[in-house]
Amino acid sequence: MSHNTFGHLFRVTTFGESHGVALGCVVDGCPPGLALEVEEIQAELDRRKPGQSRFTTQRREPDEVRILSGVFADDRTGGRQLTTGTPIALVIENTDQRSKDYSEIRDSYRPGHADYAYDVKYGFRDYRGGGRSSARETAARVAAGAIARKVLPGVSIRAALVQMGPHAIDRANWDWDEVGRNPFFCPDAAAAATYEKFLDEIRKTGSSIGAVIEVVAEGVPVGLGAPVYGKLDADLAAAMMSINAVKGVEIGDGFASAALRGEDNADEMRSGNDGPAFLANHAGGVLGGISTGQPVVVRFAVKPTSSILTPRRTVTRDNRDVEIVTKGRHDPCVGIRAVPVAEAMMACVLADHYLRHRGQVGEPARGA
Amino acid sequence: MSHNTFGHLFRVTTFGESHGVALGCVVDGCPPGLALEVEEIQAELDRRKPGQSRFTTQRREPDEVRILSGVFADDRTGGRQLTTGTPIALVIENTDQRSKDYSEIRDSYRPGHADYAYDVKYGFRDYRGGGRSSARETAARVAAGAIARKVLPGVSIRAALVQMGPHAIDRANWDWDEVGRNPFFCPDAAAAATYEKFLDEIRKTGSSIGAVIEVVAEGVPVGLGAPVYGKLDADLAAAMMSINAVKGVEIGDGFASAALRGEDNADEMRSGNDGPAFLANHAGGVLGGISTGQPVVVRFAVKPTSSILTPRRTVTRDNRDVEIVTKGRHDPCVGIRAVPVAEAMMACVLADHYLRHRGQVGEPARGA
Amino acid sequence: MSHNTFGHLFRVTTFGESHGVALGCVVDGCPPGLALEVEEIQAELDRRKPGQSRFTTQRREPDEVRILSGVFADDRTGGRQLTTGTPIALVIENTDQRSKDYSEIRDSYRPGHADYAYDVKYGFRDYRGGGRSSARETAARVAAGAIARKVLPGVSIRAALVQMGPHAIDRANWDWDEVGRNPFFCPDAAAAATYEKFLDEIRKTGSSIGAVIEVVAEGVPVGLGAPVYGKLDADLAAAMMSINAVKGVEIGDGFASAALRGEDNADEMRSGNDGPAFLANHAGGVLGGISTGQPVVVRFAVKPTSSILTPRRTVTRDNRDVEIVTKGRHDPCVGIRAVPVAEAMMACVLADHYLRHRGQVGEPARGA
Amino acid sequence: MSHNTFGHLFRVTTFGESHGVALGCVVDGCPPGLALEVEEIQAELDRRKPGQSRFTTQRREPDEVRILSGVFADDRTGGRQLTTGTPIALVIENTDQRSKDYSEIRDSYRPGHADYAYDVKYGFRDYRGGGRSSARETAARVAAGAIARKVLPGVSIRAALVQMGPHAIDRANWDWDEVGRNPFFCPDAAAAATYEKFLDEIRKTGSSIGAVIEVVAEGVPVGLGAPVYGKLDADLAAAMMSINAVKGVEIGDGFASAALRGEDNADEMRSGNDGPAFLANHAGGVLGGISTGQPVVVRFAVKPTSSILTPRRTVTRDNRDVEIVTKGRHDPCVGIRAVPVAEAMMACVLADHYLRHRGQVGEPARGA
Repeated sequence: MSHNTFGHLFRVTTFGESHGVALGCVVDGCPPGLALEVEEIQAELDRRKPGQSRFTTQRREPDEVRILSGVFADDRTGGRQLTTGTPIALVIENTDQRSKDYSEIRDSYRPGHADYAYDVKYGFRDYRGGGRSSARETAARVAAGAIARKVLPGVSIRAALVQMGPHAIDRANWDWDEVGRNPFFCPDAAAAATYEKFLDEIRKTGSSIGAVIEVVAEGVPVGLGAPVYGKLDADLAAAMMSINAVKGVEIGDGFASAALRGEDNADEMRSGNDGPAFLANHAGGVLGGISTGQPVVVRFAVKPTSSILTPRRTVTRDNRDVEIVTKGRHDPCVGIRAVPVAEAMMACVLADHYLRHRGQVGEPARGA
Repeated sequence: MSHNTFGHLFRVTTFGESHGVALGCVVDGCPPGLALEVEEIQAELDRRKPGQSRFTTQRREPDEVRILSGVFADDRTGGRQLTTGTPIALVIENTDQRSKDYSEIRDSYRPGHADYAYDVKYGFRDYRGGGRSSARETAARVAAGAIARKVLPGVSIRAALVQMGPHAIDRANWDWDEVGRNPFFCPDAAAAATYEKFLDEIRKTGSSIGAVIEVVAEGVPVGLGAPVYGKLDADLAAAMMSINAVKGVEIGDGFASAALRGEDNADEMRSGNDGPAFLANHAGGVLGGISTGQPVVVRFAVKPTSSILTPRRTVTRDNRDVEIVTKGRHDPCVGIRAVPVAEAMMACVLADHYLRHRGQVGEPARGA
Repeated sequence: MSHNTFGHLFRVTTFGESHGVALGCVVDGCPPGLALEVEEIQAELDRRKPGQSRFTTQRREPDEVRILSGVFADDRTGGRQLTTGTPIALVIENTDQRSKDYSEIRDSYRPGHADYAYDVKYGFRDYRGGGRSSARETAARVAAGAIARKVLPGVSIRAALVQMGPHAIDRANWDWDEVGRNPFFCPDAAAAATYEKFLDEIRKTGSSIGAVIEVVAEGVPVGLGAPVYGKLDADLAAAMMSINAVKGVEIGDGFASAALRGEDNADEMRSGNDGPAFLANHAGGVLGGISTGQPVVVRFAVKPTSSILTPRRTVTRDNRDVEIVTKGRHDPCVGIRAVPVAEAMMACVLADHYLRHRGQVGEPARGA
Repeated sequence: MSHNTFGHLFRVTTFGESHGVALGCVVDGCPPGLALEVEEIQAELDRRKPGQSRFTTQRREPDEVRILSGVFADDRTGGRQLTTGTPIALVIENTDQRSKDYSEIRDSYRPGHADYAYDVKYGFRDYRGGGRSSARETAARVAAGAIARKVLPGVSIRAALVQMGPHAIDRANWDWDEVGRNPFFCPDAAAAATYEKFLDEIRKTGSSIGAVIEVVAEGVPVGLGAPVYGKLDADLAAAMMSINAVKGVEIGDGFASAALRGEDNADEMRSGNDGPAFLANHAGGVLGGISTGQPVVVRFAVKPTSSILTPRRTVTRDNRDVEIVTKGRHDPCVGIRAVPVAEAMMACVLADHYLRHRGQVGEPARGA
């Protein structure tokens, strides 16, 4: 059972509400002996932090992380702080808990949000800023992801925003370095310019827009994952779908493969000096649920933020008709801040499968 | 850990290779006291059975299921056979194990198949008919799904093929009754006629084609699923992605929601006599990971069968270049037989979450 | 996988080292709507707190607990703080981290401790105060146990120390009220007087002594647990054996039942006004792994504290012979402080099985 | 959740009722490439088989096991049958299902059995021969244990009956070879002679008697297990307590350690040529939940068979007072046949922890 735990051997249990005392996570199963400093975790958190441009929520949270356990700076190991193999607890205190007026969302169900389902399920809910269903929970994931990366030597994990609203990037322009240069994590400088104008317009009208994110892991060993219900791609699908507002996930060619013929879809191979080499990557690095050594490529769709300034029809807890406008500081495109979250989830899934493979079979092979 | 187990409270563990002695499953956690006859399971299996038209593999397996445990016909309960609350083991013996020549796939990696990844992961593989990675494993899922349906009173689960290759159905023509009348599980009679011609052409050229399947569950109680890592849609994504050849999954508007604005995506509500009612279902019946009481709508893409008659370039186990043609009895569109499998997976996920909800909260509410 | 998680539906994940920054736990799966104040948790912690008599370690920790998440005081529910159904994170900061000299235990393996096994397993260890293997971790369990009790309406859980060294209590003297009146949690006033003299002698010689604790749960519904691997008594055995220094666990007559004949062991039944009634409780409230409605009775043996002032032979990390004396502030009888821990573990196991039963079957029956 | 599954990485899921169609198990997570023939599993089953002497039930079951999946005899690996890394399903058909009259146990609750708890929990039960709560389920465990042994190179696992009723063995006489020479698995020839007379008397009076079994694993690597809730001894306690009729479990000195002082309990160490060596094994091979490399020693108490010929008072399903005599073919001392079951459970726990350690840390070290 895993309502708040993700993974099996590399296990992340998160806790915390948007406007509660704190949020955080416990990372259980991390191998011992990995060098880990809090600054490394903080650096990842800073990439996700709100308020860094006018295109993300203006809520100002320092999102400062503390390590409570699971590391030790042993003088016998040169004083470097290492993971000990015991659970690593990370906590981020909530500081920007404006005592604002929640009376409207307390009693009315915001369309597109979990409010109604929550109230029916649990009988009531922590309505402050969305409580546990707020995307703020993903800060804990990003922190855990920083640790997961440590488990995966030689693996590079990067994500980018590849579509905003109707505007897809031009893949011919893909430049990973560009991702760090614009506030959209966009790998195409031309598209980023388009996004800037487009999102300004969206933002000014108090509306919001969806997006598509692509995550790519390179250097993944061959053999991660398992047939049937331990498929690497099934776990990646669950991981991405568990991110707030995600409505679709695909691997490799994804939905486009439905239109293909067998000849055009199956990746051919040729012998190479270092063993077999693939001639294409329609599969997105996973066949039969097992990594092939090719880059693992996952894309997912994020719906537009449901908190908008346009009045929407809804009902109250006591079944009265009302209109609602969700004021507050909201991301006009939540897909943007999903980019570092996607990397974190990819890292956690791969770390988990790396350890699972090592448990059953032994060290995984590099290759392909 | 769940390499071969699916679900938490309603747990399905499957076993068996394509050409091994038998395949089957153990269903653990089924509530006691549900009437269950083997014929009900067999009826579901017969819908998935190969060789029922020229559009599925001509392999002839009776797929006859036996119940080994977990049911009891008590004379005190009128002699009806009931589930007892103990594990229900189901076995299907393999009968059509032609002693064919596997030397080619034994030594060469079929493009688009798990062969290479398997060999690297496990050191060798049961190459007969794909072994554990064969879609034959899904027979066990369909059997388990027949039991899962019993756990869900008042829930209707149906699936249909909505796209074959480039040809999508016309949704205006949707007729669930039509699904049982054509060999494609297609809800649009006109599209079914197109598919017949199109797939005959594909089949005759020894090629294959992809497809999209849609699964709809109606009558789902409000409140199934949980925030964060117990999201109903995350589990559905994993469930569908764990079906052979699936490369993408979406819920509700799915990837299309990336192009929408907030006003167009969030489903508004109005009060009704029986409580709140939604005015649309862009969300596909799930908000914040929790069912809303609206129909749960999932779609997934199936890649074209990788076993085709066109020669493809590949390498051997000892890294030599060869060409391979995958002879044998293959489905030209594996998406077709994925339809009853999709229903089974939807049933298993919902049954699991039904029991999970009941464990944490109590009986779930009907509604919406 | 559960290296640091206990339970399935009522899940407790603990973290923290003896002399790290903090320790705590995340309680996942707690039902929503239970009234919970931090003072209730603190009250349980105070029972376990060190330094309350000369018979427990003189380390002075306030063990002050904070609730970080999972509760909400909704004005619509009268302002009472309720559990929300989301994870409840509890944190206890470590304050008494004397910067003492650990060089001896850093390099030498204390006999009876996990030091050697730890070093071989993980390559190194946080040697400060035993790190993760310190009994200090049980503070988190006691905190979680306070929440578990809330899940179990009408269930009373109490524990007592029934043997210290060679001195067993006289069961004819059993008085639950006496447990709170002496520093040993002993239900027999006469035995408590004996223990006082006996333990003073032990303490003054720098030695330590073992003990036996008995835990009794009354009002447990019939039907908790499950046959085979979900047995209530198997989970209780694991729970108690997971407490530091525990070397044996028994249910009901336990080891004494090995000497009995069938006639003397099996509890007979007679009809009663409220249904069947048992005439004895040799079984300790569990038959076939399922609760019978009788009191659940568990006993466990705690070995003597391994940290003693008598010099003991051991080896260093680099395999040199040395003698070691474990100075510091140690419990002469760790069994004493295991009493509230035992109650907490009983509460957690019962809460978990309560929710598990409700998930599979529905509300459990009271009775017997 | 694990009502019918045991283990995490080496997972055993069993199914089947005493008088159902068949019983068996699915072993999931077994590493690939281990040589495994059905005869090896059968040999273990034959040790547990009933009807081999007048001291066990006269029910005659051949207990013939079939492997349905998970192995493959590849001509490229010399034709030896190897595990493939996929689930291994084992089935034993029930053949001795006498159509006997169950009316008495159908309606009355046998004292000492799970009948009453079962009926209250599940609403009814498969009363034929105890259904799922019959010790017949342990056949599946013994079969799984034969596979678990394969995972543990260099580990020897043996068990023996060390007490029958009031008669303990003389440990000075311990001879492992003797275990195979008498029908009691007793390592002391003199005690075995005593048991023969004693049990004949018990048997003739239609009574039954309890027993204590000891299991010893030698050659266990250092480092299996984990602190806190992944303790090796906690899992062993659960494993043994999950065997039918077990009421107590202890590790090393067990309950006797409660009477010891620290000096007498903690095992001292000295340096050796191959690293540190222990001078005693009071700990039973486990410290802080982690194996030390010493022999792992576990003992458990089995209560007397509850099915006896002496009339006992009980009630019926409709709460009427009756007397019951449990006719049929019963073991006068169920402890005897628990011996091979104990070995199997030890093997399963060690195999699981071996893989868990390898997953988190890498290959475990031999030693001590």
